[in-house]
Amino acid sequence: MPPPPLVLGIDVGGSKILGVLVDPRNPSVVRAEARRPTPTGRGELLDAVAWVADELVRSSDGPVGALGIGLPGLVDRRGVFRYGPHVADLVDVDVRAELERRLEMPVAVDNDATCAARGEFAVGAGAGADDAVMITLGTGIGVGLLVDGAVRVGSHGFAGEAGHITVERDGEACPCGRRGCWERYASGSALGRLGREAVAAGRAPGLSSAVGDVADLRGEHVVAAALRGDTGAAAVLDDYAGWIAVGLVNLVAVLDSAVVVLGGGVVDAADVLHDRIVAAVRANWYGGSRWPIVPVVIATRGSRAGALGAAVLATTSVGAPLAQLPPSAP
Amino acid sequence: MPPPPLVLGIDVGGSKILGVLVDPRNPSVVRAEARRPTPTGRGELLDAVAWVADELVRSSDGPVGALGIGLPGLVDRRGVFRYGPHVADLVDVDVRAELERRLEMPVAVDNDATCAARGEFAVGAGAGADDAVMITLGTGIGVGLLVDGAVRVGSHGFAGEAGHITVERDGEACPCGRRGCWERYASGSALGRLGREAVAAGRAPGLSSAVGDVADLRGEHVVAAALRGDTGAAAVLDDYAGWIAVGLVNLVAVLDSAVVVLGGGVVDAADVLHDRIVAAVRANWYGGSRWPIVPVVIATRGSRAGALGAAVLATTSVGAPLAQLPPSAP
Repeated sequence: MPPPPLVLGIDVGGSKILGVLVDPRNPSVVRAEARRPTPTGRGELLDAVAWVADELVRSSDGPVGALGIGLPGLVDRRGVFRYGPHVADLVDVDVRAELERRLEMPVAVDNDATCAARGEFAVGAGAGADDAVMITLGTGIGVGLLVDGAVRVGSHGFAGEAGHITVERDGEACPCGRRGCWERYASGSALGRLGREAVAAGRAPGLSSAVGDVADLRGEHVVAAALRGDTGAAAVLDDYAGWIAVGLVNLVAVLDSAVVVLGGGVVDAADVLHDRIVAAVRANWYGGSRWPIVPVVIATRGSRAGALGAAVLATTSVGAPLAQLPPSAP
Repeated sequence: MPPPPLVLGIDVGGSKILGVLVDPRNPSVVRAEARRPTPTGRGELLDAVAWVADELVRSSDGPVGALGIGLPGLVDRRGVFRYGPHVADLVDVDVRAELERRLEMPVAVDNDATCAARGEFAVGAGAGADDAVMITLGTGIGVGLLVDGAVRVGSHGFAGEAGHITVERDGEACPCGRRGCWERYASGSALGRLGREAVAAGRAPGLSSAVGDVADLRGEHVVAAALRGDTGAAAVLDDYAGWIAVGLVNLVAVLDSAVVVLGGGVVDAADVLHDRIVAAVRANWYGGSRWPIVPVVIATRGSRAGALGAAVLATTSVGAPLAQLPPSAP
């Protein structure tokens, strides 16, 4: 029997488009990689995606059978990209049909956080679990759900928009128009805000010297200051970890996941954040002694998780044998 | 081919145990019913359950093949009741094995809110949906999840403990030991507290005359006063509906459910609450115009939903044909 065709996975991020070429029988090995900056001009995004796909097809030594792609925003179950705040000129575009026409191969489209979850659940930190949640902490928060052995995307395809669960009814205003959304407190960008507020309140004098203008203070400055032993920055990280734990425990109270995988920018700060998050989850745990505290692990596929997960998604389009992988929900 | 054996469903509530006898091919028709007060004495609960089951078996004109039972608390995937605040003497009891021994038939055990959801999803307000949430608002809040066509109970069997999602990080103290749990604001009992607070703050003078002592004010007094046209009580209901919407939208942001079914005591107040909840969900909606606002419907099986759902659960033990019903997850 001839080997199954190779598959492509492409992850569209805020700053770059990353594509990988893999063998569907073993998607953990990346055979080739291509990247390109995410274009800012109107209507150029799909051109850039097609360019990355063509580059990978040219570099392949075998036939390529399918493409999976992860996009930052609401993707419906038919592969239509409905809306995303970071790709404002891509509204109600049938990305699947458009790319199938251009590339002449089957295309599967999903949300980027769901793709990252597919990648980690298949060949990363969540591999082997039947019930898991992957939380991607970046500019916002994206969540991917593994329930009873399959990645679930909900009735329209929009499941996992957990960045917008309310954790303070009259809390911080969110660009979504509501208040108190979890990502106002627990996204990567929220860490910078918590740091700026601590400086303004005089609670973190060591942080104020980290940048010339406090308005420029970002999450990485807080992390760096904590690594230098600054106690004010450490307190900001404790608070931030507490906010992460609030939404994380909310998700597990609803889903009873066996493991939570943390990804996104937070991975780079795992040295100072992982223990704090584990401690905050323990302190905020619901269920007493009879519900074991959920393990919280750091994603292992880093910035490639989304592209790998998109490739895993593509394998469902070529019918390749993937006995070790959680199947995609129908 | 002989008809399949009949099945029993039993729902254990805080005040009564309700059992039904149904034909698994058509569980919407109750063939017989039996009830008994929930005993308060130590060790008497399973005796009372067995009494209800025996009563139904005696009343049956055909063989009975299985029993499903819903219990208020954490039930693990093997049928062991781990813990529930309202049945404090039933801790780490293998209810399935114990009842199978006594009744000499297969027994399936699940959480009571999950059973109510099974009942509504199968033969009630959620019938036909592939993705749905049922929220039972009573003393606390219980949630049952239908995801991709099956009821899901999570890795240990504890999924749906949404009453304890945090909606205010430093909010009201909860008996669970944490703060700001959704059921502090949106359970049936929370409505009474919101009413008492409104009276104390002078915002609902009409309510204070509803009872002799304001400490006795409960949710039903708020509902009755609103039905009489009391504007202070109406404002309390608006606030209460807003709190219900907070957690409801949180659940749908994560799960992208096609429909939300509301059950529990709230059903009796649907005349004054349903429109308010729908309006509050609309006001608190995330997803803009591209994510259709989730329909919120009132449970139709009332206090029988739990027993009917337990019977539906039992059908999975007798292998009866149930083409119209969402299958139980493995």
